[in-house]
Amino acid sequence: MSTFWSPHLGKLTPYVPGEQPRIERLIKLNTNENPYPPSPKVILALQAEADERLRLYPDPQSTRLTQALAAYHDVAPNEVFVGNGSDEVLAHAFNAFFMQDAPILMPTVSYSFYKVYCRLYGIQANLVPLDEGMRIDPANYTGPCGGVVFANPNAPTGIALSLDEVEQILRAQPDRVVLVDEAYVDFGAQSAVSLVRKYPNLLVVHTFSKSRALAGLRVGCAFGQRHLIEGLERVKDSFNSYPLGRLAIAGAVASLEDEDYFQEKRLQLIATREHLAEGLRALGFEVLPSATNFLFVRHPSRRADELAQALRERAILVRHLKAPETENHLRISIGTDEECGQLCSALAAILGQ
Amino acid sequence: MSTFWSPHLGKLTPYVPGEQPRIERLIKLNTNENPYPPSPKVILALQAEADERLRLYPDPQSTRLTQALAAYHDVAPNEVFVGNGSDEVLAHAFNAFFMQDAPILMPTVSYSFYKVYCRLYGIQANLVPLDEGMRIDPANYTGPCGGVVFANPNAPTGIALSLDEVEQILRAQPDRVVLVDEAYVDFGAQSAVSLVRKYPNLLVVHTFSKSRALAGLRVGCAFGQRHLIEGLERVKDSFNSYPLGRLAIAGAVASLEDEDYFQEKRLQLIATREHLAEGLRALGFEVLPSATNFLFVRHPSRRADELAQALRERAILVRHLKAPETENHLRISIGTDEECGQLCSALAAILGQ
Repeated sequence: MSTFWSPHLGKLTPYVPGEQPRIERLIKLNTNENPYPPSPKVILALQAEADERLRLYPDPQSTRLTQALAAYHDVAPNEVFVGNGSDEVLAHAFNAFFMQDAPILMPTVSYSFYKVYCRLYGIQANLVPLDEGMRIDPANYTGPCGGVVFANPNAPTGIALSLDEVEQILRAQPDRVVLVDEAYVDFGAQSAVSLVRKYPNLLVVHTFSKSRALAGLRVGCAFGQRHLIEGLERVKDSFNSYPLGRLAIAGAVASLEDEDYFQEKRLQLIATREHLAEGLRALGFEVLPSATNFLFVRHPSRRADELAQALRERAILVRHLKAPETENHLRISIGTDEECGQLCSALAAILGQ
Repeated sequence: MSTFWSPHLGKLTPYVPGEQPRIERLIKLNTNENPYPPSPKVILALQAEADERLRLYPDPQSTRLTQALAAYHDVAPNEVFVGNGSDEVLAHAFNAFFMQDAPILMPTVSYSFYKVYCRLYGIQANLVPLDEGMRIDPANYTGPCGGVVFANPNAPTGIALSLDEVEQILRAQPDRVVLVDEAYVDFGAQSAVSLVRKYPNLLVVHTFSKSRALAGLRVGCAFGQRHLIEGLERVKDSFNSYPLGRLAIAGAVASLEDEDYFQEKRLQLIATREHLAEGLRALGFEVLPSATNFLFVRHPSRRADELAQALRERAILVRHLKAPETENHLRISIGTDEECGQLCSALAAILGQ
């Protein structure tokens, strides 16, 4: 640790994203990217926006985008917050709501960046185990705490809570923010955005990186009652006034405007997922029920790390998460039908079937 | 203050950016934007990059851009850090280096976001007055402290320190990071990037928003020895793994590749600035010597806020900064020759000349 660093830097444990290798002909099923491109209308909007106006700062409030999101989700524009990917939105939310005296509650197994934010902001966390089916049990999120955060559907398990179960947690913590990270919600879960008016403690986070196939553009957002959005705005305006550039705003708006394309690709992916789940079960894998664009799977007799390595040697990347709770599983992003077929063939060969 | 907020949110004092009104035919000289568009090659690069690869995450290290910046500035790629505008880079630098026991030193008059970051991170700051010519005096930046930050050229004064003066501060603070914010350096000051190899405590921050006319794209960067860049990377990877999208990376690289265009527009702007300074002096204004794309001016017999309002009524925006040290001045961004001519005509009319 350098003597020039702030002392707290030694305590940080940076997040390690799935690798982004530059290998040709790779089947990349390791970072939950969408196998389909964004809507052609998004590409056209971006190309139209790339002009001399780039010399000007963007609208610091991203008004066009917050209005489009509000209309899409039937909330007020001032109940919407946008940021540079949902990671930035989450980071600001941890800062704005979770720097409390009491520890926050989160599942032992969830998006691993949550623990990283806790270190960054000096937030204590009580990790709540999943049940034997790797499900979040709402009954475990009661009692005094500094807030609650979980992904729904959860990652990397892929399992969704029902809205009733989400409400159970919201009712158990009326004085603390419950942050529901819905990065994958469009692939099969119910969104809690419809509950925003009912619960002053609910903050829902979405991303354009998964179902909208815009991981390369960096846009995320949050929905909540005005007092929560105002808290996020205070942090944002103490950090970076202009988190979204002109292109990000234009591209995200265009994505929201092409509903037909969105629904078509979303349903196509869900169909591929169910087909892949069948194929993997036929190969002997245990497959958790997924409401996401990935499957969390385990082979009863083969080590997950060895399977990941064997796939890698066949130019197929999947994600193996080394934590004790997840080290026996593989997280496999849903690709195209063809990519998933190649994955199954490769696994069949590796397993000697 | 909402009961849901983290207690420290009440202490934040968010930055207020210059307004971005949507008024037609406005002469906008209030946010130091470049009056010229970015290079046509940047537009072409952005349009080419806007394709189906947007479904994929960007390179989390922005390798193409750090390599291009390293080559341009003759440093090693691992001595370069990039972020979502220089505001994000500055925010991470305050976090990484200035959360020390001792207060940091900064000028009373400088980029006002520095004080906002101090509140965000709970950093104490000792504000060092400028001299009677509104200059930073390096002799005042000695003694124990948690670090030093200043803009060079300084904002909103526009006045630059020489490299010798910057070195004086670097030598006075060998154990603390000296952050030199060179947002405006291309308009007439010497860059301290050439000193990076000599001083392990030097961090230099640049932006693509001003001289490269890409305020709408959101790209900033920092240069320093490896141990400082590593500190920034630790914070960044605890906050947002992918701060720059694919378009931002491609556009910034293309800008660095069109050196002829960059030099042409830069010199054109400097010529306009000197011409405008003459014109304003002829109208009775005191004009500080500027090495930036703005002028900091004062009229001996007219209130700055009233002049700003009178200009606004003529659809010309300039910036009036209300702090006691700056309330008698106006900060006027350099526009095109035509815009600056219209500004002078409007001021002549307002002053009754």
